[in-house]
Amino acid sequence: MPSSATGAPPKELRPRDVIDLGEGVITLLDQRALPSQERRLSLTSTGEVVEAIATLAIRGAPAIGIAGAMGVALAARRALEAGEDPMEAALAAGAAIRVARPTAVNLAWAVDAQVARVHEASSAEPNRLVSELEGAARALHEAEVQRCEQIGAHGRTLMGRGARILTHCNTGALATGGYGTALGIIRAAHEADSTVRAVVDETRPLLQGARLTTWELDRLGITYTLICDNMAAALMADGRVSNVVVGADRIAANGDAANKIGTYGLAVIARAHDVPFYVAAPTSTVDLSTPTGRDIAIEERRADEVRGLELHGRPIAPADAPVANPAFDVTPAHLIAAIITERGVQRPPYERSLAAG
Amino acid sequence: MPSSATGAPPKELRPRDVIDLGEGVITLLDQRALPSQERRLSLTSTGEVVEAIATLAIRGAPAIGIAGAMGVALAARRALEAGEDPMEAALAAGAAIRVARPTAVNLAWAVDAQVARVHEASSAEPNRLVSELEGAARALHEAEVQRCEQIGAHGRTLMGRGARILTHCNTGALATGGYGTALGIIRAAHEADSTVRAVVDETRPLLQGARLTTWELDRLGITYTLICDNMAAALMADGRVSNVVVGADRIAANGDAANKIGTYGLAVIARAHDVPFYVAAPTSTVDLSTPTGRDIAIEERRADEVRGLELHGRPIAPADAPVANPAFDVTPAHLIAAIITERGVQRPPYERSLAAG
Repeated sequence: MPSSATGAPPKELRPRDVIDLGEGVITLLDQRALPSQERRLSLTSTGEVVEAIATLAIRGAPAIGIAGAMGVALAARRALEAGEDPMEAALAAGAAIRVARPTAVNLAWAVDAQVARVHEASSAEPNRLVSELEGAARALHEAEVQRCEQIGAHGRTLMGRGARILTHCNTGALATGGYGTALGIIRAAHEADSTVRAVVDETRPLLQGARLTTWELDRLGITYTLICDNMAAALMADGRVSNVVVGADRIAANGDAANKIGTYGLAVIARAHDVPFYVAAPTSTVDLSTPTGRDIAIEERRADEVRGLELHGRPIAPADAPVANPAFDVTPAHLIAAIITERGVQRPPYERSLAAG
Repeated sequence: MPSSATGAPPKELRPRDVIDLGEGVITLLDQRALPSQERRLSLTSTGEVVEAIATLAIRGAPAIGIAGAMGVALAARRALEAGEDPMEAALAAGAAIRVARPTAVNLAWAVDAQVARVHEASSAEPNRLVSELEGAARALHEAEVQRCEQIGAHGRTLMGRGARILTHCNTGALATGGYGTALGIIRAAHEADSTVRAVVDETRPLLQGARLTTWELDRLGITYTLICDNMAAALMADGRVSNVVVGADRIAANGDAANKIGTYGLAVIARAHDVPFYVAAPTSTVDLSTPTGRDIAIEERRADEVRGLELHGRPIAPADAPVANPAFDVTPAHLIAAIITERGVQRPPYERSLAAG
């Protein structure tokens, strides 16, 4: 089957296509509209940045970290232009953006780093502070892309020849600002061996696998099979999956990993079929101050994310159906064969390898 | 949370509301339009019966068996009215309807029983043959409902006080012609203990859990929580599921059970959490001529069932995304704690209990 669904030549998504900081404006690809529409958003205020993060116009742990850092710089630049105090504006923006989503550690981490720059620079020229915040945000973006490339290089060594790699949600350029973590490993493995194929879980409720990962794989020319989340076990029983590779939103010190809802079930199923289950994430996702997965706050999102789907133009559930909608789950470390960071392949016991790594 | 989403008083779905055979017409509730619309279809030809079964206007292994038996009778009645040969018409209808869907054994079983009646009655009056076929179809319908009530009575003894019963797909009155198999057990358990609650998997791709099981539970006044398929493992890890009960489309002689895609993964996850996993089905679903699950043909359905969903009015995947869409999977007998039929609770080894039962 052709890997490019549109018939258009595959075209790599550049980091600045995903998100870019200009002078007083953040431009980003609106991920809510993909794959049917490639729409760009221009954000010019803290409110717009918070809304873009909270409504998933930009999502993925590394990407929202980048957006958060850019958001702090944006507020400072806007204040400077308006003759206001950029320092105060940056701190207010940091406080607002930091809590736009609770589970991914990258957002708070990236915002806190900007806030620390504001405090350190308290005697500096306003102009210089704004430039420094902008430079730091852009440097974070570049560094995240480089980290992904390193994750890809380390991770591909674990994928066998002709691997059939199942992945969940979207961990590609869209989620990371460029290249990707788990999807970066699929990409690197495919660059080394063009017979590598992907299996893409649609990833209910918001369908990031079906909407975003397929769209990225089409651009990269990597052949894939899209499945519903509940088909993974049947495919594994048929020997159609050789590895599972997923991303993470927060990794505790003991290796427990919070990631998109559905990840934990995949890990249980992979173990039952002796399919190695890998987590790929930059070290910015490792939170050594969180001892175990039990300490990770799990975001519960709106019921309408589950109910508000349409099949042939009709709603898929009673409008008031009681719903559970945890956005993440926690995969215990004992189900994870390795955690792949930019520093290398971390093996159990993770208490040791993550702290050292 | 209120169990009735509509605010309307719960109202039991009667067997003849699901499907009913009149003189020269089958009326049924169009399950494709639920829950947003309660639309009745009138079928007056074999072609319409085949289409209703193939497009899932009526679905569920026992229900399509009933529809198949009624379809044969319908063809005979129509031929009689048109001055044609009812015997020939019944045999032609049987041949066409029998293959409308391949996995559930009930359809072929019910149609074959009607065809046998035609052959046995080869010297009878046409009038009498038609009445006999109609009577047999209606008797099958009544018998399936009774079998479900017996399944419910047996199965509820396995559910503990305050049980939290997770079920997949729809196995209620809609799927069986009345009462239900797995959902019948939930219903019987709830009648005995009003603190029993259901957890409903949405059941991608066609969302029978979200669309149909919720709708039935609302009518029955049974409180439930709707989840995406990929949330089941997280709920089990949280201790929010005490039992899993599912239906079956075909049970092999060794106890391997084919059921809606996603069932097998649930069984694997339930085992990992020591949650008992039960299969509920009438003995008409047991096919002793199929030795194991490997011998069950799995229907692969259209890719657009996976791709053709809309989120906020937008397609959820590239239009040409390569898709896998197996409609069923096979749960091996060793993951099944018991198979509940109208005859009782069958325990392993199933080779023995199913053959004896």
